[in-house]
Amino acid sequence: MKRIALLGCGSMGTQIALAIESGTFPATLTHVYDASKDASASLVQKLTNKPEIVENPHLLSSQPIDIVVEAASQDAVKDVALSVLQNKKDLMIMSVGALLDESIYDILSDACKDFKKTIYLPSGAIAGLDGIKSVKDELESLSITTSKHPRSLKGAKFFETSNINLDEINSATTIFEGTAKAAVSLFPANINVAALLSLIGLGSAKTNVKIVADPNTDKNTHHIEATGKFGKMTFTIENIPDVNNPKTSRLAILSAIQTLKTYCSNDIQIGT
Amino acid sequence: MKRIALLGCGSMGTQIALAIESGTFPATLTHVYDASKDASASLVQKLTNKPEIVENPHLLSSQPIDIVVEAASQDAVKDVALSVLQNKKDLMIMSVGALLDESIYDILSDACKDFKKTIYLPSGAIAGLDGIKSVKDELESLSITTSKHPRSLKGAKFFETSNINLDEINSATTIFEGTAKAAVSLFPANINVAALLSLIGLGSAKTNVKIVADPNTDKNTHHIEATGKFGKMTFTIENIPDVNNPKTSRLAILSAIQTLKTYCSNDIQIGT
Repeated sequence: MKRIALLGCGSMGTQIALAIESGTFPATLTHVYDASKDASASLVQKLTNKPEIVENPHLLSSQPIDIVVEAASQDAVKDVALSVLQNKKDLMIMSVGALLDESIYDILSDACKDFKKTIYLPSGAIAGLDGIKSVKDELESLSITTSKHPRSLKGAKFFETSNINLDEINSATTIFEGTAKAAVSLFPANINVAALLSLIGLGSAKTNVKIVADPNTDKNTHHIEATGKFGKMTFTIENIPDVNNPKTSRLAILSAIQTLKTYCSNDIQIGT
Repeated sequence: MKRIALLGCGSMGTQIALAIESGTFPATLTHVYDASKDASASLVQKLTNKPEIVENPHLLSSQPIDIVVEAASQDAVKDVALSVLQNKKDLMIMSVGALLDESIYDILSDACKDFKKTIYLPSGAIAGLDGIKSVKDELESLSITTSKHPRSLKGAKFFETSNINLDEINSATTIFEGTAKAAVSLFPANINVAALLSLIGLGSAKTNVKIVADPNTDKNTHHIEATGKFGKMTFTIENIPDVNNPKTSRLAILSAIQTLKTYCSNDIQIGT
């Protein structure tokens, strides 16, 4: 039975906590933290097996737990990730954009080796990362095209300096084409997907991102292409938004829960 | 540093052994076995760090090793898998078709829990299993279409009772459409891919397989479609055959090596 501590008690954290409580894999949620005391209290209130609320995020990894699950923010990752490893605990990270800073990535990768611990990054709202990581050394090009309804793109920093008026788009229109490095600052809602692809493959300067506004869809669709000596892979993932949190794809929640399930279980594990 | 024992010293086993010897991940190959003494001797001769050749496959897991890597045959899996777990060692299986027998799957899954060990099945010649396993509980349909040059299909059991003459096919032609259960016995060369999809998803009776003979391709292409409440995923993997063993896709070897690398390393692990 693995003991889990949860950092972040928002919509994602709550769904992870409920999945742990459902008993479908051998785990118990023992400690939680959220910067908002209301959020942590509200989560604990929903659970039958009450975890302890700790006073600050660093107190999660000093408990007798196996893994800290981060579902909070990039800042939370930057704040606690290293101390989690130093406390000899594993870590699952949802806010993977934090790792795009190369110095942070390198420090955490080295710390994993030094303290013999592992950081897990679920596949999030995309899939096919099993294939891409296998061919990483022979990868020649890697690109992703994300199509969303214009309303799902509203508020992105991109529009502060663009003439595009989302309300006037009446057919599928490419509004951005550039590197993942540029995309993550201009389209924060896309950061996790762009970060995962950048980290697994060619880095954010060589990963290409295209954003399409499509008024005729209610899904978030990611189309990924990878080419190299191995051949070619293309993956299309049409995601339905989660009913509890329309900003998140249902797949992102399911892949987080699956990663935790695999971590906690001794069983037949299918997939690279 | 993980200690690895290798069961099967053919083309796949040799490439895995060479990958271990390359030192790109912290592992050492300590023991090997092959039913052919020439094959094991030939492999050991290629390596600088000579592993010990054991006298029978059961002697692999009685050594002080962490994992047995099977790259031999379905019969080898059926023969040794349980005793590997009983000896408290992990196991990586290449001949995944052996697990299509439900009683074997259940026995091994239970043994993983009993002995707190894990069996790893790499994604083989396909990709996207990270996504499919995450949505397993809401999967409604799962299908795969495999396209190959007619010469790559020759000799399949299917042709013993079929009127199709592969030499007469001059454009892409669907020659089989049915369940994975039927496909694995009729097209043994496709067994690993069909088995992986069956095991991860809906079982072999509900997984659909289509085989296309295409004289205009030199690649093996797998097109996978999964639908359900989560949305829809499609994965297309165009594989180049391995130069050392044209019957195997290069990706199948790379995914086996990646699975082993992940097993041996404490690092940032990307993907569900």
